[in-house]
Amino acid sequence: MTETKPEPQEATRRGRPGYDQRGILEVAVEAFNEYGYDATSIGVLAERLGLSKSAIYHHVASKDELLRLALDEALDGLEGVLTEESAATGPAADRLAHVLRGAVRVLVERLPYVTLLLRVRGNTDVERAALARRRAFDRSVAALVENARDEGSVRADIDPGIVTRLLFGMINSIVEWYRPGGAESADQLASDVLAVALDGLRVQDAADRETLSAALRED
Amino acid sequence: MTETKPEPQEATRRGRPGYDQRGILEVAVEAFNEYGYDATSIGVLAERLGLSKSAIYHHVASKDELLRLALDEALDGLEGVLTEESAATGPAADRLAHVLRGAVRVLVERLPYVTLLLRVRGNTDVERAALARRRAFDRSVAALVENARDEGSVRADIDPGIVTRLLFGMINSIVEWYRPGGAESADQLASDVLAVALDGLRVQDAADRETLSAALRED
Repeated sequence: MTETKPEPQEATRRGRPGYDQRGILEVAVEAFNEYGYDATSIGVLAERLGLSKSAIYHHVASKDELLRLALDEALDGLEGVLTEESAATGPAADRLAHVLRGAVRVLVERLPYVTLLLRVRGNTDVERAALARRRAFDRSVAALVENARDEGSVRADIDPGIVTRLLFGMINSIVEWYRPGGAESADQLASDVLAVALDGLRVQDAADRETLSAALRED
Repeated sequence: MTETKPEPQEATRRGRPGYDQRGILEVAVEAFNEYGYDATSIGVLAERLGLSKSAIYHHVASKDELLRLALDEALDGLEGVLTEESAATGPAADRLAHVLRGAVRVLVERLPYVTLLLRVRGNTDVERAALARRRAFDRSVAALVENARDEGSVRADIDPGIVTRLLFGMINSIVEWYRPGGAESADQLASDVLAVALDGLRVQDAADRETLSAALRED
């Protein structure tokens, strides 16, 4: 009996004082998203973690470093998608599809980190550096849209910059309502986004196309 | 000469102390968006307006009432689209197109008001009432998506609730980057959104459809 019984003491120990940098980061990001970065002091974090401030400083140099680590987590994920084989070779339309799918996956898998990234307004050096990386990522996707348009596979009647903004408007809005463990898996959600973005909502038959073209021309 | 010359005194009078409720509201919404509603006191508003606090209270009962008036401006606009003739009669796909186009127009024409609405988190009765109206609006659009699907004009493979969220993710994100007087007019932007949402990005020909279908199946 004694051998198979779980050891509650060890479970407790694992759950609380045993934080490593990663564990501290997770709790910090949760707090930043809940109260805002400015309103979250190291003192508040210490309380949430059940640690002393100096125990936190053993793992990270400052609150600013926690923010940098958190934003890296989101940005490394997004930039990682761009360097994957399928994002770098083949027709631009395929590469674009791969990147959009990958962006949805990173968003879902790193939800609190991407949520934090999307709220950054550029108030500090760390925030400005993150915004610069995010803009570079957006530019890479805009370039893919442009390539796909030049290849003739993506419509040429909308500015690639606006297309990219609308696409990321759709993708980024997922942080507002998606909850992990819900009915929709990350893969399913990524497929939904790609289906709407690439194929559109309407059923593709000639009669219907006529109806909706008329609606598109509406005053 | 004296007759054609503009009268600087009157221009000044019109510009400053002559605020009516509408003028106060405009400045208040700008401040709410810039500093946040909680951080903006009537004192801050009085300073921005060059008015005394009591002059403001002559026009509105409280800061809360300013918020209510501002959120009404956004919500009345959106709800107004739903009651328009073209939103109420005809095939659901056409009605949906009309409502999406109308939502983009309201967003652009009432940009600061819709921006404020999208930031509301439900901290007060006024905010909760606004959120309830926004959810009711979203439900009406989701019902249109569902009707259009039942009519066979909108794809049946994505949940109408998710479709609606993705559509409004795309539309609402416009507040993040759109600036009035830019290269894109409200009508052009509405057409872009409808084109992406209904037709999708990809050029509709058989060979290309094959390529992108393969991309969509990508693991």
